[in-house]
Amino acid sequence: MATLRGALVVGQSGGPTAVINNSLVGVIEQSLLEEQITAVYGSLRGIQGVLQDRLVDLGRESPQTLSGLRRTPGAALGTVRYKLQEEDYERVVEVMRAHGVRFFCYIGGNDSMDTAYRVDAVARRTGYELRCIGVPKTVDNDLAGTDHCPGYGSAARFVALAARDTGWDTESMGLSSPVKVIEIMGRNAGWLTAAAALARKETGDPPHLIYVPERPVDDATVVAEVGDVVAAREHCVVALSEGAVPDTGMGEVDAFGHQMKGGAAEHLERILSEQLGLKVRVDKPNYLQRSFSTCISEVDANEAYMVGQSAVRLAVDGKSGVMVTLVRVAQDPYQCETGTVPLEQIANAERLLPDVYLSEQGNDVTAAFLDYARPLIGPPPPPLARLARFAVPPLV
Amino acid sequence: MATLRGALVVGQSGGPTAVINNSLVGVIEQSLLEEQITAVYGSLRGIQGVLQDRLVDLGRESPQTLSGLRRTPGAALGTVRYKLQEEDYERVVEVMRAHGVRFFCYIGGNDSMDTAYRVDAVARRTGYELRCIGVPKTVDNDLAGTDHCPGYGSAARFVALAARDTGWDTESMGLSSPVKVIEIMGRNAGWLTAAAALARKETGDPPHLIYVPERPVDDATVVAEVGDVVAAREHCVVALSEGAVPDTGMGEVDAFGHQMKGGAAEHLERILSEQLGLKVRVDKPNYLQRSFSTCISEVDANEAYMVGQSAVRLAVDGKSGVMVTLVRVAQDPYQCETGTVPLEQIANAERLLPDVYLSEQGNDVTAAFLDYARPLIGPPPPPLARLARFAVPPLV
Repeated sequence: MATLRGALVVGQSGGPTAVINNSLVGVIEQSLLEEQITAVYGSLRGIQGVLQDRLVDLGRESPQTLSGLRRTPGAALGTVRYKLQEEDYERVVEVMRAHGVRFFCYIGGNDSMDTAYRVDAVARRTGYELRCIGVPKTVDNDLAGTDHCPGYGSAARFVALAARDTGWDTESMGLSSPVKVIEIMGRNAGWLTAAAALARKETGDPPHLIYVPERPVDDATVVAEVGDVVAAREHCVVALSEGAVPDTGMGEVDAFGHQMKGGAAEHLERILSEQLGLKVRVDKPNYLQRSFSTCISEVDANEAYMVGQSAVRLAVDGKSGVMVTLVRVAQDPYQCETGTVPLEQIANAERLLPDVYLSEQGNDVTAAFLDYARPLIGPPPPPLARLARFAVPPLV
Repeated sequence: MATLRGALVVGQSGGPTAVINNSLVGVIEQSLLEEQITAVYGSLRGIQGVLQDRLVDLGRESPQTLSGLRRTPGAALGTVRYKLQEEDYERVVEVMRAHGVRFFCYIGGNDSMDTAYRVDAVARRTGYELRCIGVPKTVDNDLAGTDHCPGYGSAARFVALAARDTGWDTESMGLSSPVKVIEIMGRNAGWLTAAAALARKETGDPPHLIYVPERPVDDATVVAEVGDVVAAREHCVVALSEGAVPDTGMGEVDAFGHQMKGGAAEHLERILSEQLGLKVRVDKPNYLQRSFSTCISEVDANEAYMVGQSAVRLAVDGKSGVMVTLVRVAQDPYQCETGTVPLEQIANAERLLPDVYLSEQGNDVTAAFLDYARPLIGPPPPPLARLARFAVPPLV
């Protein structure tokens, strides 16, 4: 095989993560090391940048910028939710050809892997040698073929700390507002919601109930389970996936024809306050979960960088049509290496929480899940403290 | 004046902050140093603990517990939203007397200062010498008589970082979902929402619009202002106080007689998507603002400790019926000392954002606000980075 030389294009696609720019920097810095790579271009707003021939020269960015990007949320190249049409793909390859692009790294989730797969296929069909590598990212952790997804660890760290801290706040409020529902991203997969358990230290630590889409719950079960926890502990913290409640009454319209807003958390708020007569408080951190850079997991940031680097090395080594994966090679101490999986096995596939990670009742995670996820969130957060509360004998 | 000797009781009341336990530890550690203080008792669930004669001996807690409490959110003694009845006050003084309590430190907001004021008054009336000191806390920063309130700086740090990071995430999404509304605590006072501006570095950094209760906005203004920002920048980040929208349609009921949920953010989501045809995303971190311990401001934690210490010294020195205040004695470098203000001037008063901190249009803060608030959130967070985006000349 003759050595292929040419430019590399990198793009970012789908919802950003707190560490998606680590993968970008990994691609850039590795590209600058490779003799076969003559230039490293960024495609603005995902594949749309190629389609519109809007590329930027990433090789000219300063080292300060690259190092700053490693703690910067959002997608530095801009992202997009545009689905390429059939006729777009030939245009994509035409633009690549015009710029002498021979290497294409696409950072994204399921849909983006589908795009990379199709670009690869069209290039092959038209006889243009273009090496296409997928770089995984998603806070949902739902990509198949990889131990976990870059982006998940940092979002999981945020969720774990958020559930812990809002839970301790709720505990201290007692029966004056005893129920807290924290709604967590995940319409189909409960990986991120499960992470709410990661900062527990002792029995009774929040969250007390975890509801995920893999085990949808009905109203009667929620009411009974929350009621039991409040009876036992005078408070209850629920970690709730967006998709854990099958029917939230969305789609109803009000008298003005406005769609009634409110998802899973508002639904629980309603049924619990109506049926248990308890004050229910809701936290919806939403996009903070995928962007809150103060909670970037070092492990996650380093792995995101590593999959970016690896994508470039794979492309230079002649691979195409694959996504970089993370392969756990040791658990204690935790260690991951990179691997590959064919893009066509990833595109549009979705990995859900396996049974072994969910308790029998379906309202909690297992020790196996904690072992799986704990290394991904980085160093354990400093422990909180509870008063021993040495009672003073009452006198009057 | 004869030296007064006896036990000290401390309680926590109202909504917790991320640093309310720093004040508790300040009270405990200072009490242990004072010869006049024979024991330091905690009242469980605010003043209710005294009323029910449920006290704990805080002098027996370990140094490890005390140091851990300094990073622990929630109120370690439990808190309460119970308003004492007239007949309760004499019982409170009776229990204090039975336990030989001569010093009372109450950590809380406006309502709690009212409680401390009344306990002081009843003790005086019944001729029992009891020195009552208020210790301020509130993320709302709305207590009169003090430069700022312990608890505000940490909540402000969280809000500043959240608005920045979710804003950068939004920017990178572009027109596919260009509007982000982050709803921030504050029904009457906009201090915390104003803090969303504290992590801005350059023109164009989020948030682009700040709406506070001191300048309530109508629908037409919001629609026009958000439309203008999106036209100029392809995205718009709005920091919105809970109380900035006078009429959110709350109180309407749906067909089933359920109250329609949704406050200020949902209202903006609805009018902006309907009238501008833009995708609007909402973040509601709610109770994370007052509990997220990863964002504790060192300045805030130290000041919270300091007001606790100071309360004890004041009580020992013969003061009663006052709240500890923070007095800014230098701006550069920032320095605060403690002072006092009579409790009756605080109880039920409320300090709003002054005009000088709000822009003429009322949708942003001024440099004067930034100068005021910036020192309170602790060291500046590490800066983010933007690509320079050196354009590659288009070819096809």
